[in-house]
Amino acid sequence: MNPLAGLRVIECASFVAAPSACMTLAQLGAEVIRVDPIGGAADYRRWPVAPTGTSLYWTALNRGKRSVAVNMRSDEGRELVAALVAEAGIFVDNAVGRRWLSYENLSARRADLIHLHLQGRADGTPAVDYTVNAEVGVPTITGREYDAAPVNHVLPAWDLLTGMTVTTGVLAALHERAKTGKGAYIELALADVAAAGVANLGWLGEAQLRGAERPKHGNHVYGSFGIDFETSDGQRVMVVALTEGQWHALRKVTGTEEVFSALEPALDVDLNQEADRYRVRETIAAILRPWFAARPLAEVSKDLDSARVLWGRYRGMPEVAASPSGVLSTVDQPGIGEVPSARSPLRWDGTYGGTATAPSLGEDTDHVLASVLGLPAAEITRLHDGGVVA
Amino acid sequence: MNPLAGLRVIECASFVAAPSACMTLAQLGAEVIRVDPIGGAADYRRWPVAPTGTSLYWTALNRGKRSVAVNMRSDEGRELVAALVAEAGIFVDNAVGRRWLSYENLSARRADLIHLHLQGRADGTPAVDYTVNAEVGVPTITGREYDAAPVNHVLPAWDLLTGMTVTTGVLAALHERAKTGKGAYIELALADVAAAGVANLGWLGEAQLRGAERPKHGNHVYGSFGIDFETSDGQRVMVVALTEGQWHALRKVTGTEEVFSALEPALDVDLNQEADRYRVRETIAAILRPWFAARPLAEVSKDLDSARVLWGRYRGMPEVAASPSGVLSTVDQPGIGEVPSARSPLRWDGTYGGTATAPSLGEDTDHVLASVLGLPAAEITRLHDGGVVA
Repeated sequence: MNPLAGLRVIECASFVAAPSACMTLAQLGAEVIRVDPIGGAADYRRWPVAPTGTSLYWTALNRGKRSVAVNMRSDEGRELVAALVAEAGIFVDNAVGRRWLSYENLSARRADLIHLHLQGRADGTPAVDYTVNAEVGVPTITGREYDAAPVNHVLPAWDLLTGMTVTTGVLAALHERAKTGKGAYIELALADVAAAGVANLGWLGEAQLRGAERPKHGNHVYGSFGIDFETSDGQRVMVVALTEGQWHALRKVTGTEEVFSALEPALDVDLNQEADRYRVRETIAAILRPWFAARPLAEVSKDLDSARVLWGRYRGMPEVAASPSGVLSTVDQPGIGEVPSARSPLRWDGTYGGTATAPSLGEDTDHVLASVLGLPAAEITRLHDGGVVA
Repeated sequence: MNPLAGLRVIECASFVAAPSACMTLAQLGAEVIRVDPIGGAADYRRWPVAPTGTSLYWTALNRGKRSVAVNMRSDEGRELVAALVAEAGIFVDNAVGRRWLSYENLSARRADLIHLHLQGRADGTPAVDYTVNAEVGVPTITGREYDAAPVNHVLPAWDLLTGMTVTTGVLAALHERAKTGKGAYIELALADVAAAGVANLGWLGEAQLRGAERPKHGNHVYGSFGIDFETSDGQRVMVVALTEGQWHALRKVTGTEEVFSALEPALDVDLNQEADRYRVRETIAAILRPWFAARPLAEVSKDLDSARVLWGRYRGMPEVAASPSGVLSTVDQPGIGEVPSARSPLRWDGTYGGTATAPSLGEDTDHVLASVLGLPAAEITRLHDGGVVA
């Protein structure tokens, strides 16, 4: 349940990607120490925020970590951070242009250091989820068929994906270090994660072969059959038929088997082929729509489940938040109160791991300076008095 | 560059999540053997496809792997797969209801097996990216402000994120096995990854506190300032000002410093605060829009870069595919020809890893049976003749 117990990781980063990565390492048992400037980094007040002003975003992304606050503009502060990195041996950062935090400087103090440096673009210039998403072409094919302008995603998908790529890189380097004794300097750019992401789905190959943009296809699932339907009580469900079995289940439960059997020769399609289901998706949707429109959600839900149709219901987040279970639970977060929170989705031996709250800024400064660097109490007091730590 | 060299992984899975995970392990040096039913799994012909019928999707998601084709309905075929898993010691699958592939059965043959079992939902029922996305509430807050209906994402973000969570889980278990000698059974549900994803951004906490859905905000970046603008030559750019520095750069380059200074007391806002920039986002966008509309992209691009504004250009995928560099390259994929392809975005010592093509189905059956299981040629011939392998 705590496979990474015994590891110590120093994080000097902000926003989503690196913090979510290091939170994942903490959930798997590592001791993660997030180092922030005194007063917090640029993400410390990021929306959404609670009425108290405490950031729901920051507290959600930094659960289970220790927090150390250091004046990183002072030489003494920098020395403390470098000493923590050398002691821990694993370091994740997304700093731009901080030479004192470079691998060259840090590995001089610890030869087998694993340093993962996160970037916007691989050339070191800044980029964020919303700019790289535009650059790789996803907004251009997202949204309604009639909407010519690009539609941005709301979910910072590339940030989250980059976070789990960070953990993958760190743990791969750890495997190698255990075998060879050698550390690693690993760089990872958000823009590269996004470009590789669309390439890995075959979408760049498609764009090249087509020589033109894929037309927008609204809420349809590309290359198969899947679309949303409204029920008689104004609820909405997403119904998908990727496999032949799922397609037959959907026909059967909606009583449309004969309709589709008659349709196939008329349209010269074989609806057992998902490519053909995609080609005539609007016709299929139009034939199925009245079945959904005639039934309330409760009946639709019962019927689709009994028939083993692949489907999901559109829920609003207030509803998701109202019934935390399984991977979701609640924690009593200082500054906020009882708030929905997630465990790690990775279950060891059928069991979810624990929950945790986020630290307050600098909560662990004294403890970390004493336990990791062995500083005496008088020295820690001196550092506080000099404004080096908080 | 090959931190996972020497590892062997057996994959019995399809679609995006597990295949992208195992491809990542291959890119980091592991020998990955994908085992498919003879004729291919449900994802073998998935769109997009090349004019030849070869799937761009399948070939993009299975690069650098070995391919073994086995009749998994036959006892002999099942025995071969179980023997491969026991030999490799690392197994990733997303099979539903295959008792012979259960951890219980497989770990009886190899006690320190690491088995990551991917699911749709944690209760074992099926779910796909598009159904779990609906269930966690993202489509409801995506799209134009005036569009009341949910907008599905096109990018299967949860699939990709689940893939990198798989690699994280496998590598964490590997770390523990190296220390303790113990294997692990890890389960991971796509639905849990999505629920944890929205919780980790603080969005469930926000929904609970607000007691209502967050209103859609179109292409704006939530809680800060970021929106798309059209240039005089019909191009489009995404401009973001998360930090005070980025905000000042944007004001300066567009010559709007005095306008915004006058606006602050008029609207009673402090635009150095990102929350206030978000509140009056439409006003800010309206003031900036004419500057972009008056200039062609080339000029906008040069000016924004000189001023160090954070921005990205909307590109179509044909353009992205046309100039592969950095993390992107091209490979000569059998069945397709020259096609854009991605390396791993993780750079070791400043260098990208290599490229690879996908195998043809069953290309490595004989080699794997001989080299991993030590089967003699006559036995392999017998298995082919009996339809057990292909």
